[in-house]
Amino acid sequence: MRSIKLILAYDGTAYAGFQRQPNGVTVQQRLEEALRAVTGEPDLRIASAAGRTDAGVHARGQVVHVRTGATIPVDRWPAALNSRLPEDIAVVGAEAVPPDFHARYWAREKRYRYTFHVSPYPAPLIRHFAYHWHRPLDLAAMRRAADLLVGRHDFAAFRASGGSAKTSVRTVTRLSLTPQGTLLFLDVAADGFLYNMVRIIAGTLLEVGAGRRTIAQVAQALKTGDRRLAGRTLPPHGLCLEEVVYGDGPARPAWWADDADAADDAE
Amino acid sequence: MRSIKLILAYDGTAYAGFQRQPNGVTVQQRLEEALRAVTGEPDLRIASAAGRTDAGVHARGQVVHVRTGATIPVDRWPAALNSRLPEDIAVVGAEAVPPDFHARYWAREKRYRYTFHVSPYPAPLIRHFAYHWHRPLDLAAMRRAADLLVGRHDFAAFRASGGSAKTSVRTVTRLSLTPQGTLLFLDVAADGFLYNMVRIIAGTLLEVGAGRRTIAQVAQALKTGDRRLAGRTLPPHGLCLEEVVYGDGPARPAWWADDADAADDAE
Repeated sequence: MRSIKLILAYDGTAYAGFQRQPNGVTVQQRLEEALRAVTGEPDLRIASAAGRTDAGVHARGQVVHVRTGATIPVDRWPAALNSRLPEDIAVVGAEAVPPDFHARYWAREKRYRYTFHVSPYPAPLIRHFAYHWHRPLDLAAMRRAADLLVGRHDFAAFRASGGSAKTSVRTVTRLSLTPQGTLLFLDVAADGFLYNMVRIIAGTLLEVGAGRRTIAQVAQALKTGDRRLAGRTLPPHGLCLEEVVYGDGPARPAWWADDADAADDAE
Repeated sequence: MRSIKLILAYDGTAYAGFQRQPNGVTVQQRLEEALRAVTGEPDLRIASAAGRTDAGVHARGQVVHVRTGATIPVDRWPAALNSRLPEDIAVVGAEAVPPDFHARYWAREKRYRYTFHVSPYPAPLIRHFAYHWHRPLDLAAMRRAADLLVGRHDFAAFRASGGSAKTSVRTVTRLSLTPQGTLLFLDVAADGFLYNMVRIIAGTLLEVGAGRRTIAQVAQALKTGDRRLAGRTLPPHGLCLEEVVYGDGPARPAWWADDADAADDAE
């Protein structure tokens, strides 16, 4: 048996999220079908995935790992799998990893991007990949609010109900807003995420930019953990899991009792 | 009656091209359905369109004009039409124009972009908007070949059969290749285009970049008009009509007997 790390890109539009579930086709299901065909191992399942992206959320850099007895050279995996995958899912990297590698537990940082399309008019070519906002935004105010959220904080106010994480303390290492033509990219990097955390941060910053929420309210939300002081959850189609950063071992030592990452939530 | 110029963006993936035809749903048909609902004029048809984009080709700046008795203020047209259009078609501009304005005859220049995605791996998020090429390309060679095509030439070798244009002489005012990450943009501007001209130019430059066609062959193709010396026609999904440039009158005087633009072909 050996361990293979796979990097995945997918258009989440047609899927009920990444993770297998009884109702609806998922990315994991399609990936495992392809893995079984390629390895000839009829019961193969992925051993873990770095992020559990929600229905409609995309990825350019999702990471999974599999344990397999198949002897196909690792550089042949992408083409072999891509020939079996539907065109809205692709393997864009494969690497042999140590037997104890774990796509979720070894992840040190995940990077998500939420894309806004800011224009009076809709843009049909990017309608599945950017959230359309038709009014002007105060970018400076959005950046001031974003700066409040960087660092180690309790993000209880930026968490949808239904998540399973034990603690809502996370470390946001980057939160930047970058305009490019009519697009505005919100890039968020953290050691872990709570249920819908990026989409709630995106909604909060949007409301600040639109003058519907004050920076003081955002500070208060962070301080009190009151979900009502944060903004609404924006729709999934603007969100993309861009990259997962790994070190050469588990992100946290095994004796770490409060295993926040072990129960990391869907985005 | 007054004349309204409309700028259209569309994802051409689901359409049998722009222009109405008996087999298949077209962008024109959907646009005219929306126009009829908004104006209350049951027989309204667009008076003309700048470009006849083929099945699967996209647009960010297609231009049409309509003549109507409807008194809706011109700044309300985009929202009124967009509320009736499917989400893969959008009106992104509207302007009152003189009664003799003509979307096709007044067009001085049309700008198309063909997008390549150059990577060993496919990219699911842009699969409908970029042509995937999985090997390295010699960009310098592609640019030398592109330079040959700029100017006033007979583009007979870069024309698919089936077009109706009387002459194959066109003036290409710009032909540039711009890399951006794994994307390569081919921007082509001309006073008019022949049937599949951009897609054949794209195929020719790609073959030069891949070392499968020489620059001498491209020069020979231009000189002889021999279609076999140019490259293959690339698929439609990489192509987008970006912009149509207008002056304040017809692009050619009425006495111009060889009316090339009047029979301008689909792209």
